[in-house]
Amino acid sequence: MSMAVSPATALGVDIGGTTIKVGRVASDGSLTDTRTVPTPRDPHVLAEVIATEVDRTPEPVIGVVNPGIIDERTGVVTFAANLGWRDLPLQAILERRLGRRVVLGHDVRAGALAESLWGAGAAGDMLFMPLGTGIASALVLDGVVRGTGWAGEVGQVLVADPDHPGTRVPFEQIASASALAARYAAATGSSDVSAGARGVLERLADGDPVAAEIVRTAIDTLADLLADTAGLLGPVPIVLGGGLAEAGDAVLEPLRAALVQRLPGELRAPLRAAVLGSWAGCLGAGALALELRQERR
Amino acid sequence: MSMAVSPATALGVDIGGTTIKVGRVASDGSLTDTRTVPTPRDPHVLAEVIATEVDRTPEPVIGVVNPGIIDERTGVVTFAANLGWRDLPLQAILERRLGRRVVLGHDVRAGALAESLWGAGAAGDMLFMPLGTGIASALVLDGVVRGTGWAGEVGQVLVADPDHPGTRVPFEQIASASALAARYAAATGSSDVSAGARGVLERLADGDPVAAEIVRTAIDTLADLLADTAGLLGPVPIVLGGGLAEAGDAVLEPLRAALVQRLPGELRAPLRAAVLGSWAGCLGAGALALELRQERR
Repeated sequence: MSMAVSPATALGVDIGGTTIKVGRVASDGSLTDTRTVPTPRDPHVLAEVIATEVDRTPEPVIGVVNPGIIDERTGVVTFAANLGWRDLPLQAILERRLGRRVVLGHDVRAGALAESLWGAGAAGDMLFMPLGTGIASALVLDGVVRGTGWAGEVGQVLVADPDHPGTRVPFEQIASASALAARYAAATGSSDVSAGARGVLERLADGDPVAAEIVRTAIDTLADLLADTAGLLGPVPIVLGGGLAEAGDAVLEPLRAALVQRLPGELRAPLRAAVLGSWAGCLGAGALALELRQERR
Repeated sequence: MSMAVSPATALGVDIGGTTIKVGRVASDGSLTDTRTVPTPRDPHVLAEVIATEVDRTPEPVIGVVNPGIIDERTGVVTFAANLGWRDLPLQAILERRLGRRVVLGHDVRAGALAESLWGAGAAGDMLFMPLGTGIASALVLDGVVRGTGWAGEVGQVLVADPDHPGTRVPFEQIASASALAARYAAATGSSDVSAGARGVLERLADGDPVAAEIVRTAIDTLADLLADTAGLLGPVPIVLGGGLAEAGDAVLEPLRAALVQRLPGELRAPLRAAVLGSWAGCLGAGALALELRQERR
């Protein structure tokens, strides 16, 4: 699927649960002409909204990324809970409406590609894991983003429920940024979850024991997964994104300490925060359109 | 490193802690002229022993595999606890003595290659994990065995010690075949560990509650790792080898049940026992020499 002449810029479109991020992505990672529009749930209305944005640009190839279960080979959104889509041939719908080539990707795998090219990723291998509303991961091996479909759905792995021994809950209900806020609200009977993970981390800094316990559980659960990752792949650099990673050392330092408990020195990988922030997916969408560095198996 | 003409057969040499397995490996996976000789610890004596075997054969390329931490790029054994070797340039030592090209590999990664080509592996992706004296794993992606060095050293990941809450032990001290025997002996004060994992599984079948608890802990610990693997990679087929997998459904069935508790249906991968047995490493050594299907990064 390589092109005779690679375009110098491509349009990146990151479809989120509430907003669509659009921007022009250049091959040096610069992002210009950014726009944010509300996400319509009807895919044909969505195509109209994207067409309005696309009509303003000369780029011949559009990269579009989406959360959920994506089959990059066929351009189909297998399942997207946030958007209520199932087996939606989004690439074909958009290509028909836009009259341009569309490359469909997964938001987290595209974000990993962007971090690998222009962000926190070293050359070579990387595990990228945004800890946001949910949790998914993407593996970059030899500079190529691997996997499709259910690959990286670590957030759906069922782990021991700390509140109900003997039962299990999805990993992302313990270790995501949303989970911190939700679990704090549940534990304290507070309805104020508006402060989010940041609020819980602030309360932790103020010595709140409930916040401390919730953050400790999240970090231990995350460390269990990352230790297994290191065992399987060796000491591959880990790049954490999303709301929890934005807290920086307040999360990264205890997480490093938890990994020291779980790994011999030779298996301990560099652990750092993502640098591209909430536009990583849009940048990655542009990267997909500019140059295919993700597998299409 | 491809050759102008691939040889139809190659010599495979699998250096174990106590014996060396030697055999002629054909590109269809047939294994002939097999021999087993004791392993000398001195690498130069080892080279002499291997030379005696090699002198009997016409093969121009010899595949040699070793346990421990292997750097396939440089042909160096970084560390092999069983053999007492550290930073040993084994490939160069053997090439000098044998006067033929030697391809050095890791025993488990080579075993994965053999299972992938001629055994339990499906085309495409596979996680191979022998549960023997220790535990290491190898990842086959798109038919290529990935990784080098510390990749696959899952046995060294430190997990919760069921006997001493608050402390951790290497994963392989809970979930390997040797661990079952050793933990049963420790729990019962019995010095009879000669029956090995098989003996513990027989006692489990006879209703022995100590054996049941030890096997249950091993399976739970193993399932935690395999669930994380599925989250990271998607539902990649899992092939278990070594003494524990030879027990077949006595281990595989409860392991499958433990994975059902930990994974949504879409992340559950086929789980099966290896089929090549203890000669997988020798076969894989031959496969490395015949055709490079393992990365040399």
